[in-house]
Amino acid sequence: MNKRTILTGDRPTGRLHVGHYIGSLQNRVKMQDECNQFIMIADMQALTDNFNNPQKVRDNILEVALDYLSVGIDPQKSTILIQSMIPELSELTMYYLNLVTLARLQRNPTVKTEIIQKGFEKGLPVGFLIYPVSQAADITAFKAELVPVGEDQLPMIEQTNEIVRRFNNTYNTNVLVECEAVFSQVKRLMGTDGGSKMGKSLNNAIYLSDSAEDVKKKVMGMMTDPNHLRIEDPGKVEGNSVFEYLEAFDGDNETLEELKNHYRKGGLGDVEVKKRLISVLEEFLSPIRERRNQFEQKPEEVMTILREGSKKAQLVAAQTLEEVKAAMTINYF
Amino acid sequence: MNKRTILTGDRPTGRLHVGHYIGSLQNRVKMQDECNQFIMIADMQALTDNFNNPQKVRDNILEVALDYLSVGIDPQKSTILIQSMIPELSELTMYYLNLVTLARLQRNPTVKTEIIQKGFEKGLPVGFLIYPVSQAADITAFKAELVPVGEDQLPMIEQTNEIVRRFNNTYNTNVLVECEAVFSQVKRLMGTDGGSKMGKSLNNAIYLSDSAEDVKKKVMGMMTDPNHLRIEDPGKVEGNSVFEYLEAFDGDNETLEELKNHYRKGGLGDVEVKKRLISVLEEFLSPIRERRNQFEQKPEEVMTILREGSKKAQLVAAQTLEEVKAAMTINYF
Repeated sequence: MNKRTILTGDRPTGRLHVGHYIGSLQNRVKMQDECNQFIMIADMQALTDNFNNPQKVRDNILEVALDYLSVGIDPQKSTILIQSMIPELSELTMYYLNLVTLARLQRNPTVKTEIIQKGFEKGLPVGFLIYPVSQAADITAFKAELVPVGEDQLPMIEQTNEIVRRFNNTYNTNVLVECEAVFSQVKRLMGTDGGSKMGKSLNNAIYLSDSAEDVKKKVMGMMTDPNHLRIEDPGKVEGNSVFEYLEAFDGDNETLEELKNHYRKGGLGDVEVKKRLISVLEEFLSPIRERRNQFEQKPEEVMTILREGSKKAQLVAAQTLEEVKAAMTINYF
Repeated sequence: MNKRTILTGDRPTGRLHVGHYIGSLQNRVKMQDECNQFIMIADMQALTDNFNNPQKVRDNILEVALDYLSVGIDPQKSTILIQSMIPELSELTMYYLNLVTLARLQRNPTVKTEIIQKGFEKGLPVGFLIYPVSQAADITAFKAELVPVGEDQLPMIEQTNEIVRRFNNTYNTNVLVECEAVFSQVKRLMGTDGGSKMGKSLNNAIYLSDSAEDVKKKVMGMMTDPNHLRIEDPGKVEGNSVFEYLEAFDGDNETLEELKNHYRKGGLGDVEVKKRLISVLEEFLSPIRERRNQFEQKPEEVMTILREGSKKAQLVAAQTLEEVKAAMTINYF
């Protein structure tokens, strides 16, 4: 049985946090057994809105790779690649750009929102505007059938499939393959401040690479129920970040249910719940941290993994590009 | 003494005509001794407005190469390359796109005019909009210092130099080199119909590959002075395409001056002047046609020239890309 191909990845703009683990990394660890998985470190995409700070992108390539390896992504099972090391992705983008109109790109709701978020209204870098086309190149280069996305990224999948259909139709071929969005079953983990999104810029994230000391400090500072002032007060579990994290990481459902009931009734202090979360997170993070430490000792080995993954990925992308050029009859030799 | 580097080229959308010879090919034959000359067959650029008809682009690669070789472009002196065979050009384009705003591209007067000419107002392919950035990649990849252009293409040179300055400034480097526009001393040759531009779509061109029979027919049908009805009538030489062609191709200035005077006074028929032009053009075209016929017998040899030129060009572009990536600190290995 042929395994289906899946493409995932991250922009290398910061270390990965427990929200990334819940939202995608744990699924990748599972998927590497079920699928032919490509994991892309999207440095070129990161540069579209970090072109003034390429050093950040550079530095985070190793960080993100360390995060991957430390959570159990196995380079024997998953192909980890660096986007900029596959020239074919740029070449495909150039050909696809002929098949997409400016109006279509400007209609992309995700890009529209991001343009405002990033303050690009006054001077929109074209590289940023066209990144959905570049994503289409990434997805189609590996003939990915499955692409895990958040709901806000659905327009990217639609754009990709439009390009696939337009290409196949224009050049009377079927070399490009439509892809399917895979939504995470798990909802997005809130920040330690109770905010709906965890992120570096929000300073509300627990990183996979955080020390035990950092984790302890961050958990002790987590937002709980603001009306739960005294231990004896009844507290709310819903929207309480500490309980949400327990929900995500505590394998012992029975004890968790008891804790919740006790907290709701009153008589259970935040500190006690937080202590449980610290111990639960430590149980989860300490083997990850240990593996990370091991790989941190030998960065050349990590770079070799990235180089070899990129090489392997390039062979696949080169094959697709060859088919694309043949379909366009521009395979001259 | 280091030779200066010059980049020229053509979109492979049709065979080249005598207007191309006067406007640029003859200069390239000269420049290949004075400069380090790259001549690019710009197939990717041709595809930006011919994406629906890639076969046309494909077919004309060989035609244009045959035209080059037949007029005396020497692959030992000039590097003839096919744009799509240099992946580095696409990669450079991707990085440069981050440094150019959409508003800036939309302001490009040449592109604005072309958008209307091509009927792209209603659906502008992004590939077409960004072709000035792709040109900047072409020029800078080879570190071309000189770029022969028509006046209408001056905005392309400006766009390129803006990108060069922006890149060098953003990444605190001097790896990219500003280029200089070189204008043709010779004015553009008019069409056989007296129109100001010679072109395939206008059906008013004499091709370098036209047979003697075709040339004769085309010259006999050329527009002269519409008021020169009878032989004895005085005729106008200015704006008379037959005299303009004689001006361009007749080496015998003295005889030409006599002819002009005779024509102005009256008593010199169009047929006689046209016969002279036919003989002058034949003298010019027959060795070109002969060389073309020789190369046509061995298209594999022509393709080998293109492959080897592209390989040689790729080494240069790869070196530039390496420097570009190093300046951006994204040279990971």
